[in-house]
Amino acid sequence: MLGGAATFFSLAASMFDQVNLVGPVGDDFGEAEMAVLRTRGANVDDVEHVAGGKSFFWSGRYHDNMDTRDTLDTQLGVFEHFEPKLSEGSREAEVVFLANIQPGLQLQVREQCERAEFVALDSMNLWIDIARDQLVDIIGRVDCLLLNDEELRQLTGKPTIYTAAREILGWGPSIIVAKQGAHGATLITADSYFSLPAYPLELVVDPTGAGDTFAGGFVGFIAAHAGGTFDDNVLRNAMAYGTSLASYTVQRFGTEALQAITPDDVDQRVADLWSYGRFDLIESALRA
Amino acid sequence: MLGGAATFFSLAASMFDQVNLVGPVGDDFGEAEMAVLRTRGANVDDVEHVAGGKSFFWSGRYHDNMDTRDTLDTQLGVFEHFEPKLSEGSREAEVVFLANIQPGLQLQVREQCERAEFVALDSMNLWIDIARDQLVDIIGRVDCLLLNDEELRQLTGKPTIYTAAREILGWGPSIIVAKQGAHGATLITADSYFSLPAYPLELVVDPTGAGDTFAGGFVGFIAAHAGGTFDDNVLRNAMAYGTSLASYTVQRFGTEALQAITPDDVDQRVADLWSYGRFDLIESALRA
Repeated sequence: MLGGAATFFSLAASMFDQVNLVGPVGDDFGEAEMAVLRTRGANVDDVEHVAGGKSFFWSGRYHDNMDTRDTLDTQLGVFEHFEPKLSEGSREAEVVFLANIQPGLQLQVREQCERAEFVALDSMNLWIDIARDQLVDIIGRVDCLLLNDEELRQLTGKPTIYTAAREILGWGPSIIVAKQGAHGATLITADSYFSLPAYPLELVVDPTGAGDTFAGGFVGFIAAHAGGTFDDNVLRNAMAYGTSLASYTVQRFGTEALQAITPDDVDQRVADLWSYGRFDLIESALRA
Repeated sequence: MLGGAATFFSLAASMFDQVNLVGPVGDDFGEAEMAVLRTRGANVDDVEHVAGGKSFFWSGRYHDNMDTRDTLDTQLGVFEHFEPKLSEGSREAEVVFLANIQPGLQLQVREQCERAEFVALDSMNLWIDIARDQLVDIIGRVDCLLLNDEELRQLTGKPTIYTAAREILGWGPSIIVAKQGAHGATLITADSYFSLPAYPLELVVDPTGAGDTFAGGFVGFIAAHAGGTFDDNVLRNAMAYGTSLASYTVQRFGTEALQAITPDDVDQRVADLWSYGRFDLIESALRA
């Protein structure tokens, strides 16, 4: 079914701001799929149709805990020989998300966005394994890196996500987001640490796309509210909006939920998340 | 080295209130070990020395992420034929913690504490596997159950910790604490949900005892502050104190850290944890 990082990201981010999509699709990508991409007015001028090509394809099997998964099949398809050439409109983007793909492709897009004030990057263990130097290079050119806990440790060789994040903050980015699946996400900057649980659910139907949906809400919120500065409380709210949106994605297959939800749905879960993490400090008299 | 649930629990809980320890030890348990148990005035009258016996022993190997471990050896030793007979002082306890051991033994202690107003229970997958009926029985007679995520799912057959906790709330307890290792802990009651991250650390030296230390801080705080009622904000602060204390345990081997820390150390990390989970809601104007 229709999936893909750009799809989930765009459906979430378009709740906050205009999205311009960049990427290639193949002959298997029809008008119905394009219609989904155009949700909430996303611009698809830079979605390049490669005649005779096949769209990127992924399939996997989730473990019982829905947090770990085995990849069954990955086909880069039209991404294999893709050379991104951004339209003028996309080149002028002030906020850019480089979804998970070969680091070399991410770099080509990054270099065309000369006016970008905030660039976020997602990646995965595959690129740490086979293209680590290129990955470290592009990480040095972005403001924000999103990776899961294990990938943060793998990339840096550091034992905890805290030390891993501190290491990467020295490479260039000013914001690290550790994605923790059913355990939520943690934001680490030079002088702030913020951890937000995942939204509690009765049933997780399909976690596919949760990370990209989170990124869409996170980056979308920043695009709509940052105004050039990345205030700590803006980043924390962005985490909550990303988490709220991702919680809807995992409750249904594919993009079903993201197409159906309303602003009130999203706001409601953000308000819930606010209450799930707060407490009023009680003065305690500890015994020495 | 000296470890054990009662040891870690007592060292943490004694920072809040007088602790009476109940349990058997063998000939290998000497005066140095008893001295540790007596830290901060804990009463060891009900620590029964079994002549010719061997103390409970556990060893294991942690995986790289420090969150999963393989048990190498468990020897019940003097626990195998233990029949707890509580002194009058222990029988009058208003707050009771039943540390992880055979559910039948936990029940015997529970039944002798007729004045208990708050009873918390810890257990593990072993007892779900080999003594499930007894475990479910004792769970029905306590106020609070502490288990890790996987055990909550295993015990109930429910897919998420939220649905697992809701199920167990129907068995009798009014408070469920899901222990999540490096991801923190989550508190679930009939009308509240609270999730707290673990304290971020540069290095985890030995996670052994973290869960029991958490329980000691959690139950100890409740003993010192609840006064018969279990106010939601008291429970949330109790989570923070348990988390703060546990973060010290894992930074050193055995009970070293718990013997060395001061009230200020504990308060400082509680204040940090307060800041790691909070944000001020920003009104957002989402696009439909």
